[in-house]
Amino acid sequence: MAKAPVLTPRADDFPRWYQDLITKAELADNGPVRGTMVIRPYGYGLWERMQQDMDARIKETGTQNAYFPLLIPQSYLAREADHVDGFAPELAVVTHGGGKELEEPAVVRPTSEMIINASFSKWVQSYRDLPLLINQWGNVVRWELRPRLFLRTTEFLWQEGHTAHATYEEARDFAARIQRHVYADFMENTLAMDVVLGRKTVKERFAGAINTLTLEGMMGDGKALQLGTSHELGQNFAKAFNTRFLSKEGTQELVWQTSWGSTTRMVGALVMMHGDDDGLRIPPRLAAVQAVVLAVKGDDAVLAKVREMGDRLKAGGVRVQVDDRTDVPFGRRAVDWELKGVPVRIEVGPRDLESGTAMLVRRIPGAKEPVAIDSLPGLLPAVLDQDQMLLLRQSRERRESRTAEVSTIEEAVEAAASGGWARIPWAALGAEGEAKLAEHAVTVRCLVAEDGSVPESEDAPGNVAVVARAY
Amino acid sequence: MAKAPVLTPRADDFPRWYQDLITKAELADNGPVRGTMVIRPYGYGLWERMQQDMDARIKETGTQNAYFPLLIPQSYLAREADHVDGFAPELAVVTHGGGKELEEPAVVRPTSEMIINASFSKWVQSYRDLPLLINQWGNVVRWELRPRLFLRTTEFLWQEGHTAHATYEEARDFAARIQRHVYADFMENTLAMDVVLGRKTVKERFAGAINTLTLEGMMGDGKALQLGTSHELGQNFAKAFNTRFLSKEGTQELVWQTSWGSTTRMVGALVMMHGDDDGLRIPPRLAAVQAVVLAVKGDDAVLAKVREMGDRLKAGGVRVQVDDRTDVPFGRRAVDWELKGVPVRIEVGPRDLESGTAMLVRRIPGAKEPVAIDSLPGLLPAVLDQDQMLLLRQSRERRESRTAEVSTIEEAVEAAASGGWARIPWAALGAEGEAKLAEHAVTVRCLVAEDGSVPESEDAPGNVAVVARAY
Repeated sequence: MAKAPVLTPRADDFPRWYQDLITKAELADNGPVRGTMVIRPYGYGLWERMQQDMDARIKETGTQNAYFPLLIPQSYLAREADHVDGFAPELAVVTHGGGKELEEPAVVRPTSEMIINASFSKWVQSYRDLPLLINQWGNVVRWELRPRLFLRTTEFLWQEGHTAHATYEEARDFAARIQRHVYADFMENTLAMDVVLGRKTVKERFAGAINTLTLEGMMGDGKALQLGTSHELGQNFAKAFNTRFLSKEGTQELVWQTSWGSTTRMVGALVMMHGDDDGLRIPPRLAAVQAVVLAVKGDDAVLAKVREMGDRLKAGGVRVQVDDRTDVPFGRRAVDWELKGVPVRIEVGPRDLESGTAMLVRRIPGAKEPVAIDSLPGLLPAVLDQDQMLLLRQSRERRESRTAEVSTIEEAVEAAASGGWARIPWAALGAEGEAKLAEHAVTVRCLVAEDGSVPESEDAPGNVAVVARAY
Repeated sequence: MAKAPVLTPRADDFPRWYQDLITKAELADNGPVRGTMVIRPYGYGLWERMQQDMDARIKETGTQNAYFPLLIPQSYLAREADHVDGFAPELAVVTHGGGKELEEPAVVRPTSEMIINASFSKWVQSYRDLPLLINQWGNVVRWELRPRLFLRTTEFLWQEGHTAHATYEEARDFAARIQRHVYADFMENTLAMDVVLGRKTVKERFAGAINTLTLEGMMGDGKALQLGTSHELGQNFAKAFNTRFLSKEGTQELVWQTSWGSTTRMVGALVMMHGDDDGLRIPPRLAAVQAVVLAVKGDDAVLAKVREMGDRLKAGGVRVQVDDRTDVPFGRRAVDWELKGVPVRIEVGPRDLESGTAMLVRRIPGAKEPVAIDSLPGLLPAVLDQDQMLLLRQSRERRESRTAEVSTIEEAVEAAASGGWARIPWAALGAEGEAKLAEHAVTVRCLVAEDGSVPESEDAPGNVAVVARAY
């Protein structure tokens, strides 16, 4: 009889598989207030390493971190008409503080454009103060009716960048730089995730933006997930807060702004893009533990060997954990490491010692072979590099093989319904076609130019719409 | 005529000096909702470096980071009687979410014992799950009637550790380990702050704790500031949430818990402990910029030299910034670096080049001397080390010279009123004396043992009360 699977197979029920995996790999739990999430240490460790990597990339652009208040006077939200329309239905409102009803209720920030512009309008006086490049790591709250762990939660963690520039062109270029050189580079090189870079249609734009750039990824079930956005805000918020500067020419000008964000949703994306029926597969560059050295049995020689191997691999720059918990059955530990997606396992038992070999188990290709123990320190860095590349290649191949080139709305809907994406000329779709797709729960994820680059305008000739069902 | 001082002198008006410095060094602003704070990049940079250092120390204890929800069902707070009494007056309450009135209001966390115990009671099953060592970096809200930037703000940033142990002794020892080996080591070695370690009296204990350990620092005006606390929670929260484990002996037992926190208040402490009439003095180990190399004038040779010096110092492991903004008057830049407290300035002008020297200005001792340019890379690490030590020594000497040994309540009040601390035998004071001190706005900051160690109990013979006015 076959062993019962640890997880619901993806092919049987993808959402159930996702939930199973989040629980069994101890990534997160539901919190008591509807839609909130407890991020457990293993899940938080993934986020922490994402943060470190992104933070360095953000700082390389000259952006500095700062912190703005969680609570925003309710009246601020109303200053930018599109913005308030977009966010009003999702707000959490504090009406009482310190035992009294507040004179003016405060909203828990759903995003910080408003509160940050209140500061920017004070900080920016002259062209010398520009560009002003600020990032914030924090939490935001958007009331969520159909929550799903990591993907849609009432509270989530994120970074939100906010910048002010002297010209339209500078702001436009900065938003594009964040999309390409911060977000896409991070997702491709560290997370090993294939992403499509494009621009949103007017319908899908951020509330208050003049343009939204996006990164879209294909999940294991063929649905799309928006992985990060970078907005050109034009002068909309500058007008609302009168954020002006004295130009070189001596005139008072409104600033041009951007904002951009990426969230704990990326942890959910990591699960759904790379996970398989045995569990997570963590990209080696992200993994806090790249290799685990397992003692198969509690034999003294074996224990000595795994500890020695651990030290040697560590000295070679590999992030290693030694698993010598031989009071727990070996099979259970192996399944657990498999679930947690540690890229490499090195299993050492008494027989291996005799032959001078260890079992090298590679999680990403799913390969298993005995190798000479002494060759491991030399071998491992290359193995980890190869598997990092393989993971990116697999996600790219999936997206390519499951994207259909179509020319009609009916074909696009069919492609999305059968678990894939479709590419359709934007000229053949347009805002009307977009509305028709919506009736089938299919959305335009983004527009891309003919040559695959990000279009400079919605109506540039040759624009292609990438359409899909989405999380 | 003497130049007008950049800051209100401390001797004239210490609170005003503090506010001046926070503003002029661009550390923080007030937020629009009462008591909230905008932490500006320079201030946030200090906090970020504190976080990094503390985070490494916390992880060395085996503690892992995780994240729990911001919003807590209001009913949870009521489960532990002392806890709710302590926090009820400070709560911010969310009554509306997603456009509707909530069935049960949620409070914005003032601290996370309650929400964390809801998880701990699920995660802890057996003695094998213990100790459970968790830390969280995040924001909390406590409605503040008399806010002051960094010291008392309605929202603040902090870390809060929460642990569960199998025995009373283990929990007690862990709380003490955090006080000594995380907090005190960090404050003394990185922040160069003198701190007194002690235990709180029953009156001053954390709401819900059986013992609170504290670290108290003396500010520049002789007042005390609580810099961090580590609590033994006993089984109070375990009872409220029924957090039990199966012991080795097969019985069901309640866990023993600790919690411990340190906050952005440490930034305020840094200002008030080390600042002088010219601005901040940042300890070299904390400083993001340890040395700034200033071009006095925009001479090509000077600019080439400061850039070369910057590279050489960087190569030697010093955190350096080159200031070649020669379109801003030199005097203004010098005053600004002084305000921002960068430990070392190296000033290079055309005359210096001729003589092969640069002016070495040390912010901490306030010393200024010409040194051979080529000697600087060799000299600087030792200079920074010495000044780190000096800063700690100065803060220690201040506390020692301004602490009076007294035997009566009247003397204690007088010492506190004249800007100092007093030490008085706890046996001579007691809870009644403590109440009398309170009439003069003087509090028992902590109890210390005769030999200076942290007392094992409130009533241990020889206990001394350290009393002061406090922030």
